Amino acid sequence: MRRAAALVIGNEILTGKVVEGNVAFLAKELFALGIRFERVIICPDVPEEIARDVNELRVTYDYVFTSGGVGPTHDDVTVPAIASAFGVALARDEALSLRIRAHFGERTTEGHLRMADMPLGATLLARDTSDWPVLQVGNVFVMPGVPDIFRRKFALVRPHLEARASFVSGAIFAWADEGEIASTLEQVELAHEGVLVGSYPRFDDADHSVKLTFDGSSAPRVLNALLACKQALIAKLGEASIVRLDLPDEPAS
Amino acid sequence: MRRAAALVIGNEILTGKVVEGNVAFLAKELFALGIRFERVIICPDVPEEIARDVNELRVTYDYVFTSGGVGPTHDDVTVPAIASAFGVALARDEALSLRIRAHFGERTTEGHLRMADMPLGATLLARDTSDWPVLQVGNVFVMPGVPDIFRRKFALVRPHLEARASFVSGAIFAWADEGEIASTLEQVELAHEGVLVGSYPRFDDADHSVKLTFDGSSAPRVLNALLACKQALIAKLGEASIVRLDLPDEPAS
Repeated sequence: MRRAAALVIGNEILTGKVVEGNVAFLAKELFALGIRFERVIICPDVPEEIARDVNELRVTYDYVFTSGGVGPTHDDVTVPAIASAFGVALARDEALSLRIRAHFGERTTEGHLRMADMPLGATLLARDTSDWPVLQVGNVFVMPGVPDIFRRKFALVRPHLEARASFVSGAIFAWADEGEIASTLEQVELAHEGVLVGSYPRFDDADHSVKLTFDGSSAPRVLNALLACKQALIAKLGEASIVRLDLPDEPAS
Repeated sequence: MRRAAALVIGNEILTGKVVEGNVAFLAKELFALGIRFERVIICPDVPEEIARDVNELRVTYDYVFTSGGVGPTHDDVTVPAIASAFGVALARDEALSLRIRAHFGERTTEGHLRMADMPLGATLLARDTSDWPVLQVGNVFVMPGVPDIFRRKFALVRPHLEARASFVSGAIFAWADEGEIASTLEQVELAHEGVLVGSYPRFDDADHSVKLTFDGSSAPRVLNALLACKQALIAKLGEASIVRLDLPDEPAS
């Protein structure tokens, strides 16, 4: 099982100006790929902190995604921080530099050209020369912070991730009090190895008061756990406690 | 200047089932209080990881907020993890236990009663006995994950936070290329100590292509930096580059 972490870089998120918009997308993508997403850190635009976090994450996780801080302005410090984390120098990529000059013409500034500065030994991921590439340094993928662009760039990264097993997920939407069913859920989880049971209460006017989730890498096991839980809830609280089911799909292969 | 961090606990966020909903709120509240929010960690429902993160954060930051994992089910492991981080035992609070029994009557389960288990030496924050309290252990505030309840409970915590100085923020919405104005922004930041300049490009059909933000604890300084930047942009790109301004308010006292 591959494991992943993300480092989200941005004062704008920590000061409440911008709502973080990439973690949920990344979580869904990694779940579908069967890669366990285990940690997210949000840190300010401080190069030393970014470098320290990158170094901690990259030795523990198979894949690290950074988000943000890759533009041309003074608060875009991610790329130099990553070079420093890996102990390598930055060098201006000639091909990217030419593309920037071609695009901005005589309006080209040093700020623009800084976007062509890459850590020595880095890999640039792109389908062809029309893509602005994603920078990969070791197991670290350097992604932009703007959500639309993050999503587009993730398509360049996806083929480079090793997806060994896919996760599947099922859910029971029920009308029950969490405290009342706590022991049932625990027993179902204990009886179904490899299935993680989650319980999420609602306090609004939804048609259910709790959503129970069943995650695992084997679709039949997830289905078994879900159905066993359904039976146990009916035995305890009656048929009416079950509002509806989301059965797990077979994993895409 | 007080510094804060948050630990968001929840497999549901890391597997993409639920979009994290408390960080943006907390960021705005802390900004308004003049408390610097410097770090967020999102971790799974694993007691050892929670305990380790709490211990790392509580020695570095003045305030630590945890979010999630405080219900009655097997995946709610935050409170025991925090007790273990502080090296103290859990003990059942008699008053809370009585309130739970009064509420659930003969349907009361051990799951319900577990919600009355508190680390020894903890403080319970509440206005009166009708509030379910927020658990405080040292400088750690243990908040629920459900966003509506997080917001309500934050009102109980706010009076206990020491707000030494309030931050103010201003913004210029401009029509400009980030690379072209990068050196201007850097000069403005260098010339206005205590003011942090941020630059956030837009790639959609907004009426501006970049939002420039000016944050600091002195309203006059923030205003000065903002106006100096406006003048520099006009000198460089003309009046038309300035779409509109958000001038900083005086901080609430």
